[in-house]
Amino acid sequence: MSVRALASALPMLDWARHYQRDTLVSDLVAALIVTIMLIPQSLAYATLAGLPPEVGLYASIAPLLLYAVFGTSRVLAVGPVAVVSLMTATAIGEHASSGSAHYAAVAITLAFLSGAMLMVMGLLRLGFLASFLSHPVISGFITASAVLIAVGQLKVVLGLSAAGQMHFITSAIGLTMVAFLFWARRGLKPLLLSWGLPARLADVLAKAGPVAGIAVSAVLTWHFEWHLAGVKIVGTVPAGLPPLSGPLWDMALLKELAMPALLISVVGFVESVSVGQTLAAKRRQRIEPDRELVALGACNVGAAMTGGFPVTGGFARSVVNFDAGAQTPAAGAFTAVGILLAALFLTPALYFVPQATLSATIVVAVLSLVDLRILKTTWAYSRSDFSAVVVTLLVTLAAGVEAGLVAGVALSLMLYVFKTSRPHIAEVGRVPGTEHFRNVLRHQVEVSERLASLRVDGSLYFANARVLEDRVNALVAERPQLEHLVLQCSAINDIDASALESLEAINLRLAEAGVHLHLSEVKGPVMDRLQGTDFLKHLNGQVYLSHFKAVSELAPELGAQS
Amino acid sequence: MSVRALASALPMLDWARHYQRDTLVSDLVAALIVTIMLIPQSLAYATLAGLPPEVGLYASIAPLLLYAVFGTSRVLAVGPVAVVSLMTATAIGEHASSGSAHYAAVAITLAFLSGAMLMVMGLLRLGFLASFLSHPVISGFITASAVLIAVGQLKVVLGLSAAGQMHFITSAIGLTMVAFLFWARRGLKPLLLSWGLPARLADVLAKAGPVAGIAVSAVLTWHFEWHLAGVKIVGTVPAGLPPLSGPLWDMALLKELAMPALLISVVGFVESVSVGQTLAAKRRQRIEPDRELVALGACNVGAAMTGGFPVTGGFARSVVNFDAGAQTPAAGAFTAVGILLAALFLTPALYFVPQATLSATIVVAVLSLVDLRILKTTWAYSRSDFSAVVVTLLVTLAAGVEAGLVAGVALSLMLYVFKTSRPHIAEVGRVPGTEHFRNVLRHQVEVSERLASLRVDGSLYFANARVLEDRVNALVAERPQLEHLVLQCSAINDIDASALESLEAINLRLAEAGVHLHLSEVKGPVMDRLQGTDFLKHLNGQVYLSHFKAVSELAPELGAQS
Repeated sequence: MSVRALASALPMLDWARHYQRDTLVSDLVAALIVTIMLIPQSLAYATLAGLPPEVGLYASIAPLLLYAVFGTSRVLAVGPVAVVSLMTATAIGEHASSGSAHYAAVAITLAFLSGAMLMVMGLLRLGFLASFLSHPVISGFITASAVLIAVGQLKVVLGLSAAGQMHFITSAIGLTMVAFLFWARRGLKPLLLSWGLPARLADVLAKAGPVAGIAVSAVLTWHFEWHLAGVKIVGTVPAGLPPLSGPLWDMALLKELAMPALLISVVGFVESVSVGQTLAAKRRQRIEPDRELVALGACNVGAAMTGGFPVTGGFARSVVNFDAGAQTPAAGAFTAVGILLAALFLTPALYFVPQATLSATIVVAVLSLVDLRILKTTWAYSRSDFSAVVVTLLVTLAAGVEAGLVAGVALSLMLYVFKTSRPHIAEVGRVPGTEHFRNVLRHQVEVSERLASLRVDGSLYFANARVLEDRVNALVAERPQLEHLVLQCSAINDIDASALESLEAINLRLAEAGVHLHLSEVKGPVMDRLQGTDFLKHLNGQVYLSHFKAVSELAPELGAQS
Repeated sequence: MSVRALASALPMLDWARHYQRDTLVSDLVAALIVTIMLIPQSLAYATLAGLPPEVGLYASIAPLLLYAVFGTSRVLAVGPVAVVSLMTATAIGEHASSGSAHYAAVAITLAFLSGAMLMVMGLLRLGFLASFLSHPVISGFITASAVLIAVGQLKVVLGLSAAGQMHFITSAIGLTMVAFLFWARRGLKPLLLSWGLPARLADVLAKAGPVAGIAVSAVLTWHFEWHLAGVKIVGTVPAGLPPLSGPLWDMALLKELAMPALLISVVGFVESVSVGQTLAAKRRQRIEPDRELVALGACNVGAAMTGGFPVTGGFARSVVNFDAGAQTPAAGAFTAVGILLAALFLTPALYFVPQATLSATIVVAVLSLVDLRILKTTWAYSRSDFSAVVVTLLVTLAAGVEAGLVAGVALSLMLYVFKTSRPHIAEVGRVPGTEHFRNVLRHQVEVSERLASLRVDGSLYFANARVLEDRVNALVAERPQLEHLVLQCSAINDIDASALESLEAINLRLAEAGVHLHLSEVKGPVMDRLQGTDFLKHLNGQVYLSHFKAVSELAPELGAQS
């Protein structure tokens, strides 16, 4: 295997060979900032997934290292993210009760299954399948998931009891934390700058805001002994290296997890690839979707082997990594080391952290995912996109994440097929003095009684072949003097066997009615295919290179005026 | 309601007002020929559907009369047909045992349900839904159904016992009848002409061939008492008017029959409409699919109210009606009278008719439906159409008519979406000395390092939006000197919200990479929609009317050479 082939198989070799000192400094600074940001996020998303907080740390180590080796994005940060954690909780909830050892084992199995699927999809180059999740479906899905997450976490933030009673101190801590986090996003950095801190330091400290907030809440809880007053705390978090683990080889379980694992894989991949592409393009770099599948697959298998749960490339952390100046995936590897140190030495400090503060970080994080503008923009742009958003949103809220995704994809495909089954067909006439032809209903154009021109705005296939037949039948029935019909084919990108059959039928009927059928501006690939059939032999007319040429030959009274 | 509005609601009033003496003669002659042909067919298809033979006659009376009132085709003949009879037998077989009174009641219920569905579909103008049955799917389905029918009837033709033993006399009668019918199709008319008969009479007598064959077999059976030697005969057929009947109002049954009834409706409608359209076009007439739905619905409800079973417009009988010179639907009404007379007076004559001869007429009729050339033509034309034929054919043969249809439709839709999810995107360059732009890989064209032109051969929607993004990303990554990218949009008939999002992303990334994005030849409807968005404001470039204009402005070194 040549160095080049190896480099192509392992993207890491590409950047590692040219690794230099100033790149190292940039990567180390970015890693520090991302590590500070990731610690509370990892803990919070693990609890969102129904797992002990330390699992969130475990799921951030191996995946970050593996992505540094296999990933094609230079700045993507992989780990637990909100929506995938919710999907994980939903998927496992049917098989185990939260907090049990079996629950954690099912989470590991789910990560393994999802990783294996991603790798297989990558090796089979199936990355394009993710495109079937349309933008409206993703938007509706993410917004609904964020609402579901926020509502669920709000109970913890308010310390609601099963009977619906709020716990006063808990809700005070939780709501204060929510308010602080919302303010810290925008207000903390300007405040630090106004205190005269250097920009770079202000930036790092602003990113550390959430960690500081959590630390303060933990110190206050310890000092005032709020945990004795009923404030739920994180409690003992085992310190140490991530454990070695593996999936449960239970065929019945694997079978039932297959569908959730597939949906988690696709959603994770879509989220990860869109972040990766956006950031890569800013530096004129590229990511390769099929190899991203393999990389994310490796990350999830890695998570499964180190006591984690399903992970993917996260939006917020990758943007922070990018903004902090990360140059290569080494930044991700350094972040992994940071999290590993946290897992080894920081866990005792987590004992007094109120659960409400972790939930507050989740609420604030997911509310930024809620995008209601999409309802307005799609309503203005296209009703079918709008209905895809609404259906995905409502079905996700009412029936859960899996039903919502499936309903959204099915509806968008049906709407697409439905739309293309009724293509726009315009009768066109000549714009006086030009070689252009336009819709007779919209423009002042020249037409002839003996010749009709139809332009079909869409490929011809089984679901719309009859539409053209009906239109031609109607035209011929209402024009007794018609001698020539010319189909302008400039927008026909494909003609399938049903449509060809339909064209044969149209040709035959026109011939029986004494009308010639001509084609103009047929595309190369379509023409190639027609030439393999008898259609052109049967055609009771000509194929013209341009529509103007067809009309000037067949109806010179139109062609001559110019 | 004006006369015109009424005529539009009842197509009958259109032709009945101008009905004249010579039209009457033409219609009467056609009705005679079709009646002679329909009597054995009706009996045979009723037994194919698992019903007593007289039900076939009942199902040919009211539907023909109702079609004459509501139908928009002037020559379509409605009644029992082979494929729908097979689907009927399959659907009822799960609910009742053949020959029982309950079986007949379920058949009536199925006809009623199918009729009601057709009428509702017609009133909602859902006729276009039938287009989702692609030509390859219909071909594969009809061929497989014909094989299933022929194999089933061959048992009766050969007099096979349950143990697989052939009955000698039965098989002699059956096979002789099959041979005679095959010969009579082509050989009978020339023979009669060679005997000096006038052409018109020879035509009528040739059509009467099958009836004559059945009569001869009945006379021989009576004379030689073959029924005592084990030849199964039709036996007592009750004479009289069709009985008044109605559906079973059993909700559980109606629910279970809903899917079969829907499939029967769609298949029947597709068969009927294609025959009707073909024949109407030969006389420069038209049929209206949505009103055909209502007419066929009325026919099936009529069949349900007169002891019948599901019916539709038949191919062979309609062509015979057309060829025999039928001018108006009155011919169908006269045929109904003919069949009614047969039901009243002819049934005693059916006693000695061997069942094998009826099955022989079915075998010969359905074998003409087998179309294996479609395998060859679709293989040559398009692999996806070929696979639709093969899958429909095999699933129908292996798992039955309903599974076959559903599998075929689902596969064709998936293949279509898959195809459009990977549109052809060509980089184009200028053909020297012209204003034309062609694929750089296929033609000797002029290109510039600073400007790239991409032509997308397909509408942009969610499933393919990413393909364009990937292509643009790759192009920009490999061309450091690129300044302008022009998308030639002549074949883009639609841009959905996901694709718009994708274009926004492409525009943003190109801008960040210092490349201008331009569009050329954007279609009117697409431009209208884009103008309602912010995309054109954000666009880091221009929209040009023609691609040539764009290139000559942006890369004058290309535009100048001519």
